[in-house]
Amino acid sequence: MALKLYGAALSPCTSRVMTCLHEKEADFELVPIDLFAGEHKQLPFLAKNPFGQIPVLEDGDLSLFESRAISAYVAEKFKETGNDLIRHQSFKEAAEVKVWMEVESQHYHPAISPIIFQFFAAPLQGKPPDQAIIDENAAKLGKVLDVYEDKLGRTKYLAGDFYSLADLFHLSFTYYFMKTPCADLINERPHVKAWWEDISSRPAFQKVASAMNFGENGN
Amino acid sequence: MALKLYGAALSPCTSRVMTCLHEKEADFELVPIDLFAGEHKQLPFLAKNPFGQIPVLEDGDLSLFESRAISAYVAEKFKETGNDLIRHQSFKEAAEVKVWMEVESQHYHPAISPIIFQFFAAPLQGKPPDQAIIDENAAKLGKVLDVYEDKLGRTKYLAGDFYSLADLFHLSFTYYFMKTPCADLINERPHVKAWWEDISSRPAFQKVASAMNFGENGN
Ligand SMILES: N[C@@H](CCC(=O)N[C@@H](CS)C(=O)NCC(=O)O)C(=O)O
Ligand SMILES: N[C@@H](CCC(=O)N[C@@H](CS)C(=O)NCC(=O)O)C(=O)O
Repeated sequence: MALKLYGAALSPCTSRVMTCLHEKEADFELVPIDLFAGEHKQLPFLAKNPFGQIPVLEDGDLSLFESRAISAYVAEKFKETGNDLIRHQSFKEAAEVKVWMEVESQHYHPAISPIIFQFFAAPLQGKPPDQAIIDENAAKLGKVLDVYEDKLGRTKYLAGDFYSLADLFHLSFTYYFMKTPCADLINERPHVKAWWEDISSRPAFQKVASAMNFGENGN
Repeated sequence: MALKLYGAALSPCTSRVMTCLHEKEADFELVPIDLFAGEHKQLPFLAKNPFGQIPVLEDGDLSLFESRAISAYVAEKFKETGNDLIRHQSFKEAAEVKVWMEVESQHYHPAISPIIFQFFAAPLQGKPPDQAIIDENAAKLGKVLDVYEDKLGRTKYLAGDFYSLADLFHLSFTYYFMKTPCADLINERPHVKAWWEDISSRPAFQKVASAMNFGENGN
C-alpha cells in the first residue's frame, strides 16, 4: 500500500517530506489539504494532527506528523533504497547528521521562518512585510550562516562530505527565501552559495520546487 | 574511556543530556564551563561548538553539540543498557518517539523557553520579567498543553505507554518552569500534572535536579 501524504505541494513543510520521499524513491500519494479553506483546523484532519498543521503521513495504521519526524521515519524505513540520508552504516557519520539536523531546527529555522512569513504570509493578511522583524532575523540568520560558511569550507555538506537529511531539511524554506530581497545573505557567502546551488539542483528537490509557487499567479 | 560532557549542572540543556546519561547508566565526566566568565564564547570552547553554547559531548575523537542530538546519540549508543528511550525494537513505537520529540522541539520549547528566560535570565541582566512576553507565551503553552492533556488521557506517556526520550526532553525546562508563578498551567491539567509528577520523580532526573538551582543562593 502506498504511503499517503496529507498536505499541499506549495507548503515548505510538505515539500520537505516530498523531497525526502523522492530521494528514497518511495511511492506515495499526495492528498491535498486546503489551507485556504481551513481544512487543517477541522475534523477529520485534526484527528490526524492535533496541532492542525500539515503535513501528515499515513503508512498503514501508522499516522505521523511533524515534517522532520516524518522525514527521519522515511529515511530509516527506506534506508536501503535511494540515497542514504542518515548514514546508517557509520555510527560516527550518523551522529554528525543528528547534530546538523538539530542546527537546522534550533538555529536556522527560527531565523529564516519569520522572514519567509513576512514576505509571503503577512501580505495575504493584508499587512506589508514588517521591516524590523526582517532586519532582526536577517542579522540572526547572518550569524548562523557565518558558522555554515566556515563549516562548508571544511566539508562539502553540513554533516560531512556526504549529502544527508541535515542538508535536505534546509531546502524548502531556503527556496522561498531565495525569492526575497534577503537572498544576498546566501549569495555573498561563497561556500554557502555553492552548497545551496548543489543541493537545490538535486533531481529529488527539482521535482517539488516547480510546485512551490506560493504567492505567485494567484496561489 | 569515559564520555566527557562540557557544560554546567544548573543549565537545563546540560541537565537534559545528564538525565539521559543516567537513564542509560553511562559513565561520564562533567567538565564545568563557566558561563558567567564567558568561557563558552572563547576558544578553546568555540572550536567544540561554533555556536558558543553548552553542552558539548566528547566521545573519543567524536565531538557533538546540541543537547537533543547528543541525547539521541547516547540513547542509541547505549541502547542495550538502562531504559530503552528510543524503542529500537519497535519500528512503530520508534516513529511515535520521533514525532513527540519534534513536538517538544517545535511547539513546547518555543513557548516555555521565553518564560524561563524572563523569570531567570532577565533579572540577571538587571531587567524585571516582561509580563507581556510571559502572557503571550503562557497562552501559547496553554494550547500545547491542551493537546498534551488529551494525549496523556489516552496514553501514559507522550509517545505511548512507555517512557521515552520524548518525555525526557521536557524535564529540565519544565523543572525550572514549575518554580515560576506560571506552574498552574501544568497543575490545573490533571493528566499533564500526573505525567509531570511521574517523569520528574524518576531517579535519573532526581540526580540532576538537586543541582538545578539557577537563580537561588547566589547561583
Ligand atoms: N513543525 C511543523 C510545522 C508545520 C507547519 O507549520 N505547517 C504549515 C504549512 S508549512 C501549516 O500547516 N500552517 C498552517 C497553520 O499553522 O495553521 C512541521 O515541521 O511539520
Ligand atoms: N539548542 C541548544 C541550546 C543550547 C543552549 O541554549 N545552552 C545554553 C545553556 S542551557 C547556553 O549555552 N547559553 C549561553 C548562550 O547561549 O550564550 C541545545 O539544545 O543544546
